[in-house]
Amino acid sequence: MNDPVEETFKDLLSASARSRGYPFLERAALWEQRLAMHLQDLDAILKAPDAGDMLVLPPRGELEVLSPQTRPDDTRPIDDLPFASVAQIAAHVRARSLSPLEVAEAFLARIDQHQRLSAFITVRPERVRADARALDLRVTRGEDVGPLAGVPVAVKDLMQVRGYPTTCGTRAIEPREGARDAEAVAKLRAAGALVIGMANLHELAYGVTSANVHFGAVGNPVAPGHLPGGSSGGSGAAVAAGLATIGVGTDTGGSIRVPAACCGVVGFKPTHDAVSREGVWPLAWSLDHIGPLTRSVDDAALAFEAMAGLPAGCVGGKRVERPRMVRPVAFFFDHVEDPVRAHVMRVIGDLAAAGARVDERDVEGMQYAPATQFLTLASEACQANWELLMNRPEGLSPDVRLRLEVGQFIGALDYVKAQRLRRWLRDNMLAALGEADVFVLPTLPVSIPPRGTSILQIGERTLPVPTALTRLTSPFNFSGLPALSIPCGTDANGLPVGLQLVGRPGADATVLAVGRWCEKALAGREPGGA
Amino acid sequence: MNDPVEETFKDLLSASARSRGYPFLERAALWEQRLAMHLQDLDAILKAPDAGDMLVLPPRGELEVLSPQTRPDDTRPIDDLPFASVAQIAAHVRARSLSPLEVAEAFLARIDQHQRLSAFITVRPERVRADARALDLRVTRGEDVGPLAGVPVAVKDLMQVRGYPTTCGTRAIEPREGARDAEAVAKLRAAGALVIGMANLHELAYGVTSANVHFGAVGNPVAPGHLPGGSSGGSGAAVAAGLATIGVGTDTGGSIRVPAACCGVVGFKPTHDAVSREGVWPLAWSLDHIGPLTRSVDDAALAFEAMAGLPAGCVGGKRVERPRMVRPVAFFFDHVEDPVRAHVMRVIGDLAAAGARVDERDVEGMQYAPATQFLTLASEACQANWELLMNRPEGLSPDVRLRLEVGQFIGALDYVKAQRLRRWLRDNMLAALGEADVFVLPTLPVSIPPRGTSILQIGERTLPVPTALTRLTSPFNFSGLPALSIPCGTDANGLPVGLQLVGRPGADATVLAVGRWCEKALAGREPGGA
Repeated sequence: MNDPVEETFKDLLSASARSRGYPFLERAALWEQRLAMHLQDLDAILKAPDAGDMLVLPPRGELEVLSPQTRPDDTRPIDDLPFASVAQIAAHVRARSLSPLEVAEAFLARIDQHQRLSAFITVRPERVRADARALDLRVTRGEDVGPLAGVPVAVKDLMQVRGYPTTCGTRAIEPREGARDAEAVAKLRAAGALVIGMANLHELAYGVTSANVHFGAVGNPVAPGHLPGGSSGGSGAAVAAGLATIGVGTDTGGSIRVPAACCGVVGFKPTHDAVSREGVWPLAWSLDHIGPLTRSVDDAALAFEAMAGLPAGCVGGKRVERPRMVRPVAFFFDHVEDPVRAHVMRVIGDLAAAGARVDERDVEGMQYAPATQFLTLASEACQANWELLMNRPEGLSPDVRLRLEVGQFIGALDYVKAQRLRRWLRDNMLAALGEADVFVLPTLPVSIPPRGTSILQIGERTLPVPTALTRLTSPFNFSGLPALSIPCGTDANGLPVGLQLVGRPGADATVLAVGRWCEKALAGREPGGA
Repeated sequence: MNDPVEETFKDLLSASARSRGYPFLERAALWEQRLAMHLQDLDAILKAPDAGDMLVLPPRGELEVLSPQTRPDDTRPIDDLPFASVAQIAAHVRARSLSPLEVAEAFLARIDQHQRLSAFITVRPERVRADARALDLRVTRGEDVGPLAGVPVAVKDLMQVRGYPTTCGTRAIEPREGARDAEAVAKLRAAGALVIGMANLHELAYGVTSANVHFGAVGNPVAPGHLPGGSSGGSGAAVAAGLATIGVGTDTGGSIRVPAACCGVVGFKPTHDAVSREGVWPLAWSLDHIGPLTRSVDDAALAFEAMAGLPAGCVGGKRVERPRMVRPVAFFFDHVEDPVRAHVMRVIGDLAAAGARVDERDVEGMQYAPATQFLTLASEACQANWELLMNRPEGLSPDVRLRLEVGQFIGALDYVKAQRLRRWLRDNMLAALGEADVFVLPTLPVSIPPRGTSILQIGERTLPVPTALTRLTSPFNFSGLPALSIPCGTDANGLPVGLQLVGRPGADATVLAVGRWCEKALAGREPGGA
């Protein structure tokens, strides 16, 4: 206990808290305990190289976009509406062989049957029906209502949606009726989508279990008794259970990809700011991303195009043959639990057998990634929610309150160093990727944990669940690279495994094209089978 | 002394310093005293509105650029070489009526005569002559050596220059012989410029007096006994005294514009990153800008074009008639010393009489500007120079050491808040500017202080000289807007006054065009005269 780094944190605790008038000094022992879990990472960053400039994330608008494509249409009959694809539902609605009101009723009934999943915080059937009728009227008039015509969308409940309260999954904010739509929601509606409800989430999006103490713990429809992942857990569970065709999520350290991996669905975190953050409650400004959760890569591409305000097909229309992949070995495959590692290695073998060219390369400096993420996230999240911490702490769950509180003990010096490491690590990632299309790696370093887990063992380290589960996803938040998680079968524990594909900034089309190629290559194969 | 904000700083001091193993705890009383000067600003920021996203500065490459222009040529005979214009020297060198070697000899002799100014740290006559001979050879061969053919340039001694040591104005860094040129220097050389020497500066660019204890205090050639300004004081003095035609400077809070105003010359801080920072010792990554000091706006435009790698005339070729100006009243004209205020108001009256349309508008939230700058600068500068603080403090002057040290006591929470205020203030500036071309305001809030001044009174506040002298310039560092200081006569104390013109990001051409218009409108007028 006489570790000098640990000692210094003790000194900082009460002094820093007093400096801003933070009144809950009796909680100091909790802060100390939580910070102790990060000490090893923080100690490393003090010794990290002093490399280069600070990160300035590239602005949106540099996306790889194809010339206008024929809109993807799928007019095959629908067997099972809850699990139909985006293109199928939209094609049938446009062709008037399916009415938006039929879609609304089918999904509302199914949501009602699956209340125990706690996938939604607010569903307003009358509003959904009114929206569906308005769409109906436009279709009947012969209007083209767009590539997502009548497609039901579950919106994570920290985005503004006209006519719905935004709770942010907490009791520390007075929910207000949304007077307008967040930009991404407005764009989905402009493409014809039907908002079906406000999806449950980890409180304030600051966690990965979605065990929301205020609105119910989200269940995992494909691995009962296990975590659904988070923070976009409600969006993931809704899509997996056929309660929505598209789930809108946000991802600050993995909050789209983690629930996608846990629920066996597709999750796409686009290039930073490719989808507008306007109208979304911030967790950490420089790390927040908005994107879709769906049941296929095609659906994800259509949802992404709509959310980014791009014409249908101009991103999702890209195709690749024999994709070039890099398996980043150090860090990304270290300390990955055996069942996950073994399964992903088999999957990569299968992809190579199907024609993918897979190289192995290391990204320099990845040992600094966890501290880089922690320092950035904890500082920005604390600032974003400072008013709640000071004035409404009784409305926060114990775990989120504690995570927010410890952000106040980080020095600007260390935050600035993290911003320099961000840039250096991003450059190192691009150097390791080279001319390849994507990195290929697991989404999670562990088999999906059982419900109630709060601490995980990664190698010899004991880490809080959010730090552990986002270890392989968060490097692509602080670097802003587009990252897709697709389901790739089940591990030796019988639990779903997510495969992560990560590309260059702006190369969202390439990442989605490789994802589709992998989906096809893996379809119907018993991974590792003869 | 029981002010709660002040008390909290005391708590933070020793705890924070211990946390990083900073060993000089006996200095705590000095830190406290220095931080106390910022308490009022810092207190304000705790109460500032929680407005919006964090700032991401726009990338370079969004500059307003005209279609290719005829290269400005001025073949009038040169009366007085040390004070000839860029266009004149270059035209005569290109026409072979003046040889680069003649230029070199004339300026070297003059530098020798003005050694008491301490404008240079390193001058290497043999190297200048060798460079001049190489240029000569190319001209003789009939090569077009560029728009700055043979023009002598003083480079601030914190940029890498091939064949020269870079001292950064300190003894805490072992100067190394530059093996290559910083990108901006390489571009000046590619345009035909002749590096004449390494200009003196405020140590590490962290101050505005240029009273360098290691390499001599820079003198003010136009107002002897008064501060030359800084940190690019050597560049300013060299240009004012005719020891160089172009001075290259860096500007993190005003370090180009402040010495320009003090020495009665033109200083231009372009849009953020319009000139590359590569090869320049950082002071604060997100605030540092590179730009020229010259004796006319035409010269500044030619120097800027070259440093930005743009063809001659494509920025400087822009002309305006009846420019539209906004006089930002609140903050920018509050607490301005009477002689300066009175003089600048007369000058603005003269500009209006000459045809400028001047509106008065306030920029919302400017009361938070000083703390926004302090939190950003102190944090980033401390990180940039942490190795020196820890390992070479004996090589630092007392004032720079103290300024660097106090940066370690800033919390990440407050740094992040400052980044949010940056964006908000930048948006507010652009809103107040509206459709106008530029803001018009003084460069300095006070008459140029006598040498030896270290504390200034601004209104009822006692402030360290750097904070006081950069009060009106630093808002355009954290916002990244292009800002030009031009001389506009002398105040009631007989001291030169700088007029600041500030435009939209990327509208460097407009700012320079308005600067040229003002220069012409003010030429030969007795400001305020009948």
